[in-house]
Amino acid sequence: MNVLVVNGPNLNLLGTRRPDVYGHTTLGEIEQACRKWGADLGMTVSAFQSNHEGEIIDRLHAAIGTMDWIVINPGALTHYSYAIHDAIEAIGLPTIEVHLSDIFSREEWRRTSVVSPVCAATIAGRGPDGYRMALEALNQT
Amino acid sequence: MNVLVVNGPNLNLLGTRRPDVYGHTTLGEIEQACRKWGADLGMTVSAFQSNHEGEIIDRLHAAIGTMDWIVINPGALTHYSYAIHDAIEAIGLPTIEVHLSDIFSREEWRRTSVVSPVCAATIAGRGPDGYRMALEALNQT
Amino acid sequence: MNVLVVNGPNLNLLGTRRPDVYGHTTLGEIEQACRKWGADLGMTVSAFQSNHEGEIIDRLHAAIGTMDWIVINPGALTHYSYAIHDAIEAIGLPTIEVHLSDIFSREEWRRTSVVSPVCAATIAGRGPDGYRMALEALNQT
Amino acid sequence: MNVLVVNGPNLNLLGTRRPDVYGHTTLGEIEQACRKWGADLGMTVSAFQSNHEGEIIDRLHAAIGTMDWIVINPGALTHYSYAIHDAIEAIGLPTIEVHLSDIFSREEWRRTSVVSPVCAATIAGRGPDGYRMALEALNQT
Amino acid sequence: MNVLVVNGPNLNLLGTRRPDVYGHTTLGEIEQACRKWGADLGMTVSAFQSNHEGEIIDRLHAAIGTMDWIVINPGALTHYSYAIHDAIEAIGLPTIEVHLSDIFSREEWRRTSVVSPVCAATIAGRGPDGYRMALEALNQT
Amino acid sequence: MNVLVVNGPNLNLLGTRRPDVYGHTTLGEIEQACRKWGADLGMTVSAFQSNHEGEIIDRLHAAIGTMDWIVINPGALTHYSYAIHDAIEAIGLPTIEVHLSDIFSREEWRRTSVVSPVCAATIAGRGPDGYRMALEALNQT
Amino acid sequence: MNVLVVNGPNLNLLGTRRPDVYGHTTLGEIEQACRKWGADLGMTVSAFQSNHEGEIIDRLHAAIGTMDWIVINPGALTHYSYAIHDAIEAIGLPTIEVHLSDIFSREEWRRTSVVSPVCAATIAGRGPDGYRMALEALNQT
Amino acid sequence: MNVLVVNGPNLNLLGTRRPDVYGHTTLGEIEQACRKWGADLGMTVSAFQSNHEGEIIDRLHAAIGTMDWIVINPGALTHYSYAIHDAIEAIGLPTIEVHLSDIFSREEWRRTSVVSPVCAATIAGRGPDGYRMALEALNQT
Amino acid sequence: MNVLVVNGPNLNLLGTRRPDVYGHTTLGEIEQACRKWGADLGMTVSAFQSNHEGEIIDRLHAAIGTMDWIVINPGALTHYSYAIHDAIEAIGLPTIEVHLSDIFSREEWRRTSVVSPVCAATIAGRGPDGYRMALEALNQT
Amino acid sequence: MNVLVVNGPNLNLLGTRRPDVYGHTTLGEIEQACRKWGADLGMTVSAFQSNHEGEIIDRLHAAIGTMDWIVINPGALTHYSYAIHDAIEAIGLPTIEVHLSDIFSREEWRRTSVVSPVCAATIAGRGPDGYRMALEALNQT
Amino acid sequence: MNVLVVNGPNLNLLGTRRPDVYGHTTLGEIEQACRKWGADLGMTVSAFQSNHEGEIIDRLHAAIGTMDWIVINPGALTHYSYAIHDAIEAIGLPTIEVHLSDIFSREEWRRTSVVSPVCAATIAGRGPDGYRMALEALNQT
Amino acid sequence: MNVLVVNGPNLNLLGTRRPDVYGHTTLGEIEQACRKWGADLGMTVSAFQSNHEGEIIDRLHAAIGTMDWIVINPGALTHYSYAIHDAIEAIGLPTIEVHLSDIFSREEWRRTSVVSPVCAATIAGRGPDGYRMALEALNQT
Repeated sequence: MNVLVVNGPNLNLLGTRRPDVYGHTTLGEIEQACRKWGADLGMTVSAFQSNHEGEIIDRLHAAIGTMDWIVINPGALTHYSYAIHDAIEAIGLPTIEVHLSDIFSREEWRRTSVVSPVCAATIAGRGPDGYRMALEALNQT
Repeated sequence: MNVLVVNGPNLNLLGTRRPDVYGHTTLGEIEQACRKWGADLGMTVSAFQSNHEGEIIDRLHAAIGTMDWIVINPGALTHYSYAIHDAIEAIGLPTIEVHLSDIFSREEWRRTSVVSPVCAATIAGRGPDGYRMALEALNQT
Repeated sequence: MNVLVVNGPNLNLLGTRRPDVYGHTTLGEIEQACRKWGADLGMTVSAFQSNHEGEIIDRLHAAIGTMDWIVINPGALTHYSYAIHDAIEAIGLPTIEVHLSDIFSREEWRRTSVVSPVCAATIAGRGPDGYRMALEALNQT
Repeated sequence: MNVLVVNGPNLNLLGTRRPDVYGHTTLGEIEQACRKWGADLGMTVSAFQSNHEGEIIDRLHAAIGTMDWIVINPGALTHYSYAIHDAIEAIGLPTIEVHLSDIFSREEWRRTSVVSPVCAATIAGRGPDGYRMALEALNQT
Repeated sequence: MNVLVVNGPNLNLLGTRRPDVYGHTTLGEIEQACRKWGADLGMTVSAFQSNHEGEIIDRLHAAIGTMDWIVINPGALTHYSYAIHDAIEAIGLPTIEVHLSDIFSREEWRRTSVVSPVCAATIAGRGPDGYRMALEALNQT
Repeated sequence: MNVLVVNGPNLNLLGTRRPDVYGHTTLGEIEQACRKWGADLGMTVSAFQSNHEGEIIDRLHAAIGTMDWIVINPGALTHYSYAIHDAIEAIGLPTIEVHLSDIFSREEWRRTSVVSPVCAATIAGRGPDGYRMALEALNQT
Repeated sequence: MNVLVVNGPNLNLLGTRRPDVYGHTTLGEIEQACRKWGADLGMTVSAFQSNHEGEIIDRLHAAIGTMDWIVINPGALTHYSYAIHDAIEAIGLPTIEVHLSDIFSREEWRRTSVVSPVCAATIAGRGPDGYRMALEALNQT
Repeated sequence: MNVLVVNGPNLNLLGTRRPDVYGHTTLGEIEQACRKWGADLGMTVSAFQSNHEGEIIDRLHAAIGTMDWIVINPGALTHYSYAIHDAIEAIGLPTIEVHLSDIFSREEWRRTSVVSPVCAATIAGRGPDGYRMALEALNQT
Repeated sequence: MNVLVVNGPNLNLLGTRRPDVYGHTTLGEIEQACRKWGADLGMTVSAFQSNHEGEIIDRLHAAIGTMDWIVINPGALTHYSYAIHDAIEAIGLPTIEVHLSDIFSREEWRRTSVVSPVCAATIAGRGPDGYRMALEALNQT
Repeated sequence: MNVLVVNGPNLNLLGTRRPDVYGHTTLGEIEQACRKWGADLGMTVSAFQSNHEGEIIDRLHAAIGTMDWIVINPGALTHYSYAIHDAIEAIGLPTIEVHLSDIFSREEWRRTSVVSPVCAATIAGRGPDGYRMALEALNQT
Repeated sequence: MNVLVVNGPNLNLLGTRRPDVYGHTTLGEIEQACRKWGADLGMTVSAFQSNHEGEIIDRLHAAIGTMDWIVINPGALTHYSYAIHDAIEAIGLPTIEVHLSDIFSREEWRRTSVVSPVCAATIAGRGPDGYRMALEALNQT
Repeated sequence: MNVLVVNGPNLNLLGTRRPDVYGHTTLGEIEQACRKWGADLGMTVSAFQSNHEGEIIDRLHAAIGTMDWIVINPGALTHYSYAIHDAIEAIGLPTIEVHLSDIFSREEWRRTSVVSPVCAATIAGRGPDGYRMALEALNQT
């Protein structure tokens, strides 16, 4: 099975800025780990990051016919990108939403996710390990 | 007269995903029809689609001095892109807003259009034919 | 096919008051045009106007079995008449909502239509021509 | 004792439209049943239906001095007719509000009744039998 | 000068119901007083009352060309009749809004008037004398 | 048929406190009357009261397989106990909601019932007789 | 009878600033007119203006035992001074609220008056003549 | 390490009611699986379910000094039990919140969790497997 | 005079958890102090704590006829237990609400007390001494 | 220790107006009592009342270096004076907020205190005795 | 050119309280600096501070005819003083609003300025230097 | 010191569209002026404009290690781009927000800035000169 792991705006800075909050793991390390976790589960993992809403939508569209599942951490776009909501709904692949921190226990505006209604599950607050949990969860679908 | 027909995020998937909801007509067919409808009315129609808010704004700017009218279906950006609102206002060309389905009868958040205040008219719920109606309407300005 | 064109409160004053806003066309002329546009499309158009919510509901009920389609501009009742909402839903005929101006770009309270959820389409901001567009749209159902 | 049973907009279509939702009983049959239920309880029942808010108010006013109790199903006017609220308050007769379906478990806007504050009781969701329950309840006042 | 005095739903019951709240003066007496107050000011006063929103709109329309000023107490329609708002705006005659009690000091929903934005003045809480004040005020325009 | 009549917090005080508001009938008398009314209709009525949300949920669960219908007056839990909402939904028995007074005409917070969406009907404002009406209504299902 | 006419912040600038909006009449002229109108009605009018909430409250307190009635235009304090609300309530003299323009037809925040609940009447939109109307109204109490 | 797995109201019905929504796995089976998953990770898992908010709080308190971690699915109490919020905060043990379905994509009121601010992570939409994910996550703390 | 001192959820942990916030005094010590303070004032103080809303309501009911006054700190139930509101109202004993910290200066949701409307006084922010103040206050009724 | 007791707008009328609500004790008597209560506790009490927000702020500023503690009843300013909020915060002296009646059980707007966040405690509903309680409370700091 | 620099409530404490937040510069030093900065620009600067809303309004009025420009930091009055809003609007002098800290990044209620709509510019977060920036900005008008 | 000046959507049209509102200065001229103003202050200014949210984020990221300060005018993205908020927060460089017009005195939705909480200062309403003020302000950090 092929899995696309998508990360949104600013997540490329992981591990280099504010390590007290986001830890020392870089996005490259997370993506590398995802590929390995996926391999252990018999999945082929493709990783993608962009600070552009439009590129994320393009990439989701390109997943049609080549990917089976999606893991997505839309970063701050989580809170207003109805366009990503529509993209996930349109491509129709099982999708799991991941957040590094528990967005539901932070500022008011971070508690709303406009993409949740089209995701099958939400994992928040587990740091990089949340991606592994999402991959395992997809494996058990 | 030159008309620019702009389609926003996810509309490139028309006719290929969820035909029960959006029908079997592809965006290519709609754009082709627009060109033909326009020709019948003595208009030259240029079609543009992008999943990127920024590219849509760039394209609207480029319409200054080359286009006379705009027909726009901003997709999900309809509901939060104040930047497209400002772009339409800035270029000052008569613009008609089109939606394939009647967004005013769907989910709560789809009932608000932040671009309506700078559009001369709104046509919703007529499927691909809404574009033809918009072209005719512009022709009668 | 038989089409009923319904106009709500104050629309009988069209063309006689505030021509700067609503133009010089009278309701009689619009209704006459509707009959002609309809005839061109092979439709028989009946026109009805009332300032009374109750009479509009009565007329919609009377359309059962004699009319095939409805075009309605409920005027200010658009914004609070749940009774007209229920009437349109009850009679079950395909209905298109028309507004002369683009109500979605005016005062806050004009941006909400309580009848939209039971209408198949909405056309706003095209002046009298909106009625023609509605008739054509019905013709293509 | 004399009882006035008032039905509001669209209830005249009962039994003829959307039987899956509203059942096969017509308003005439309900009114007939009310008269019989009333007779069994020693009441004289007068039935009235109108799609006009104004006629309902006129009829409520006419009940002064001739009627003892009111049973009212204001239909969609339930949700915005402060004028009927004032009429019920002004005539001062014990009034019971009836709804065929349980309006409190439907769309958001159907959950508010502006007439409840001046009614002695509310019966919702019992279909035509709700009227019988209202009559019995009045009989035990 | 000709003045039309319009009273809305339930005001026909004045003086007969709840005298503790609304006093013992009937609407007939108020209208008679208005005619006399008007005569003293050199005005011809026409009085009109209806429980029907539609009839009030019809009557306002009929004032075009025959009346110079309007005094209106829309009763409970004050709080939701955007159609009367539009009628007053359309006919364009100077209009003063009168309320017997001070609606701004009663229940929450009575504190909003949707017709105020198109009235030149508001007089509330002066009982029947409010009509006299409105007539005098118009006389000094 | 077996019917469970459930009463929530503070209803055990009925008839002993604030008789001006709640009357002189005790809960024991209401339960006794329910058993008799039920017997007349061929039902076996079991009555249960608790001030504990958890016990009410336990009792509703225990009704699975032993009861056919539920009559419930959740008292103040009506306004916030989503857990009772879920319990009623989970057991899947036809349920009617009863309130002694007309909660829809009292304080703001009493006008919302979180359990209504899973109840088939609501009877409010009929005092103890509301329970009889509920039993009769169930009998006619 | 003694009447205190109170004017709040910025009303001392009347007639000198923005004559297109507020006219050419100065506050001194209004106060002079009030004294004359009062004299004609057999009243002694005392006028007071201050830009200080505290001084207005002090003056209202000093009215106890020396004044019979109050006419007040609190200016912008109308919209937030609960302290003036409490002062009017505490002194217990019949009070009429006057506004030069119709505050209910201006910006959103001007549509709320926190003092209305303790005033017997509201007169808005009649310019300086509103004060005369208030004096006459008090005279007829 | 000792882990307490807490389940709230109505979760005892899992696997017996509405299998289309909640699946065929019973709570007993989930708790059994938790014990096994825990054992594999070197944890001792204690399971507790109650329909009583108070019992859940008592049990959380009893975890002080005997348990190291908490996994909690508060059921409908998630949405209003500030008392459970305070209990989790008071005992100070690392806690993960689990929901069988993705509550963030259901009814409006299910999208708010009052306990999230005191939980380290949230896992929603993974069915019974969410508990395993929570245990693993705690194991990696 | 007999006084019942009621403490709600989580207050049993006082003095043992988060001493930086809640101090080092245990609930046992507070209850002991209350008995002594009461004795000094000639009162017999009974103390009760529960994490169960239902038990608190049961205990309040049991106070009828045996207690004269109530002091209550409902803990987090303060913010949503309308059932405790109704219990206090029903038993009709003078009740004073106590909070250890000043709830009005903490998180948004802690600023609303649903029981305040039926309490004679509120004392917040005085720590354990607030109970003494409440006892003295009752003594002076 | 020196304590400043500050009373806001309209509190100077205590004991002279509406004794049914506020009792017969005058502000002079309360201030006298405060001085005596203070003396018994070894405090020197200074009393200050003003209807002017600005004077209250000036007086609070003057307390720097001369006073140790503040007791304040801001009257209606409680609900909107962010300037007094800032003054209390700036001077940094321990402050207790007192209200004669339980403001949390009155009109909606009286339930919000903008000064609470900078006060150490709130005592409401104890009449004049609330001041004594505040003094004692400060004494135990 | 003459410039009036107005500072509102509590700003007289600058430099003496909470230096960690507001710095060590006193208001006197700021005013002195303003005079110097003004002199360098060929302006005569007059400085005024008051804790009284009324005095600020009086001073603004006195600026008519003597001052050319206004710089104002209304302190906490920024958030509710519609009277200062009206004063600035009435005197009609170009006005710039200054805040020492960036009020838009602090508590919710500090993010709303009711005076902004009548100010030409807003400078926030620059500490004392914000006044210099305002003076320079006025100089370039 | 190196400063990055970022301009968001539609600002590239400055000076060419709606000169009555935005003046005749082009963005090129503003950027040129910024470079000169910077040079005078010993700064090296880099200018960047994009209509793409993603490009702005990319550019902000690229500023890490090469830029010392940021001046940003996010255009309409100001009102909804939480992704830019997160980018500014992540890179951790002192940032000043500039707006040409005083956004706080325009349409409702323009009064909210989601980026203000992570900016050190806000300058609005000074036209192109606002950029110079921002540069000077940074120079004094």
